[in-house]
Amino acid sequence: MDNIILNGENEIYYEVGYSCDNSILLVFGAEKFFITDGRYEIEAKEKAKAEVVISKNLLKSAKELILKYRVKKIKIDPSKWDYKSYNELKMIVSLQDVLELSHKKREIKSEEELKTIREAVKIGAKSFEEFKSKIEFGIDEFELSYRFKEKLTARGRRELSFEPIVAIDENSAKPHSSLTEKVLNREGLLLLDAGIKYKRYCSDRTRTLSLDSDTISMGKVQKFKDPFKQKIYDIVLKAQEEAIKKVKVGVKIGELDRVAREVIREAGYGDYFVHSLGHGVGLDIHERPYINSRNETLLKEGMVFTIEPGIYLPNRFGVRIEDMILINYNGEVEVLSEYI
Amino acid sequence: MDNIILNGENEIYYEVGYSCDNSILLVFGAEKFFITDGRYEIEAKEKAKAEVVISKNLLKSAKELILKYRVKKIKIDPSKWDYKSYNELKMIVSLQDVLELSHKKREIKSEEELKTIREAVKIGAKSFEEFKSKIEFGIDEFELSYRFKEKLTARGRRELSFEPIVAIDENSAKPHSSLTEKVLNREGLLLLDAGIKYKRYCSDRTRTLSLDSDTISMGKVQKFKDPFKQKIYDIVLKAQEEAIKKVKVGVKIGELDRVAREVIREAGYGDYFVHSLGHGVGLDIHERPYINSRNETLLKEGMVFTIEPGIYLPNRFGVRIEDMILINYNGEVEVLSEYI
Repeated sequence: MDNIILNGENEIYYEVGYSCDNSILLVFGAEKFFITDGRYEIEAKEKAKAEVVISKNLLKSAKELILKYRVKKIKIDPSKWDYKSYNELKMIVSLQDVLELSHKKREIKSEEELKTIREAVKIGAKSFEEFKSKIEFGIDEFELSYRFKEKLTARGRRELSFEPIVAIDENSAKPHSSLTEKVLNREGLLLLDAGIKYKRYCSDRTRTLSLDSDTISMGKVQKFKDPFKQKIYDIVLKAQEEAIKKVKVGVKIGELDRVAREVIREAGYGDYFVHSLGHGVGLDIHERPYINSRNETLLKEGMVFTIEPGIYLPNRFGVRIEDMILINYNGEVEVLSEYI
Repeated sequence: MDNIILNGENEIYYEVGYSCDNSILLVFGAEKFFITDGRYEIEAKEKAKAEVVISKNLLKSAKELILKYRVKKIKIDPSKWDYKSYNELKMIVSLQDVLELSHKKREIKSEEELKTIREAVKIGAKSFEEFKSKIEFGIDEFELSYRFKEKLTARGRRELSFEPIVAIDENSAKPHSSLTEKVLNREGLLLLDAGIKYKRYCSDRTRTLSLDSDTISMGKVQKFKDPFKQKIYDIVLKAQEEAIKKVKVGVKIGELDRVAREVIREAGYGDYFVHSLGHGVGLDIHERPYINSRNETLLKEGMVFTIEPGIYLPNRFGVRIEDMILINYNGEVEVLSEYI
């Protein structure tokens, strides 16, 4: 069995079911040592499936354990450790560099993880619905975002997967728009991209809303009075639907991106779909599998990822539609954000 | 002049007046190159006092510039770079390791920085006052924290320096308490530790409140019905006052910690003051100078730091009182959190 050293919060949580913002995990074959400081002692001893070591100098304690157990070789992700710490470890043990050491393991989710993720997505989708009645004309992106986060976090009782994107009209044309004082008007378009964490697992969802009808809907069918907006919206929706239809065990991941891109390219907007189609979601909001045209990996049971095509017309508006997709252990495809 | 490479957001902001979450700064003597990706091009070109280089691979562009300008030696902080990136740089240029490369420069604040910090502290203190009327019996720490953050951030328009600590009764005995569903009661004690950012500079303040009087005060004089709580509170307040009195250009920093600790030790609670007396505050919430007994550096004009003694009685309660202190360029000591 492997020897491994990890320092990331999600990396460690995945191995032992507990983590905190100051910890190192050592895996020596079947033995695991969770090193943290005194602040986390009680919780760690209750929850971590590992021997808990309390220390004022985590790296020093890790080195002592490596020496004590005469470990000769240990796997490490060289992109996750600072040069100084890595070098200190290198002085005492042979380090085997493995990029994405933890992420590679986490690409396929277990039944238990799938359950947790389904629940995360349900809570996220419900928060979108709850926010609907709080959307008002005359308030700006900061205030919209604040009200949205109130629902997403249940007034601070839940964590966000990431800082939500709330973008009105031309601001929606920037895929990673920051909040501004731009005010919401009837005839406006509103892009919402947000997720929450449930038992540390993330949800992720984007809706682009038409505000010129009497009732606002968080659904994927949107009715715009402006025929050009409607046209762009429907191209993006079709791209998403076509890609989702393609999802199946054994299909090359790159194929999903190619299918969606082809719909948008054929409609004449290929240059305005400026990012890849999607990304895996789990403990991290962005993880494997990455859904881009270069990924020739095959789709497998237990994969969870977003499909989120977009068209961004600078200084005019942008449309993105994003749902999370899961392939369960019966080989069935579940479009998660369609719950509710 | 020095050649320097930096990757931290605050580190880079300090050098060129702009930064974002994906950037590398190269300083070649008088020339500066700010490398970022396309998302930040417009803002960077407007605001960064450096030549802006747009790149899809920041490290690759940095290496190209180092080679193009035939740079032979460059200063780097080995604790701030991941092993993989550091090693790539090492292949093409001689790296001179300097720990705390940026923080050392930032220990002494300029007049301009002092002005910004005074303003940050004012806004922070005002938010404490505004929160006062939102404190209600029967609500829990989550809800209190949510209402507090509403004021601190002006409903999401300002950033926090850090996630506030809101701790009731025995939870206040943990210096880094997490939020719980514990409910506020009359006769309760409430510890609040929070700060905001203004023009990227942080404020930091702690108050421990008595809730058993008719009017809640955010001031440092607190009246507890329980004589034991009053006793502990007054010891901590005296420790803070004695340490503040000691602040003067030329005094050893460690002396401040020793003075405060002596007050608490003499009163019989030395074992319950479990952290150092304070820390510098600037672009980072924790930076130099660190106010602990081992720091033999002398106090200088332009230093800004907290003084925050505490007594933590496990399973009972904790008291901490924290203010930010500044030594201005007339050599005067300003107790910043006493504004308002």
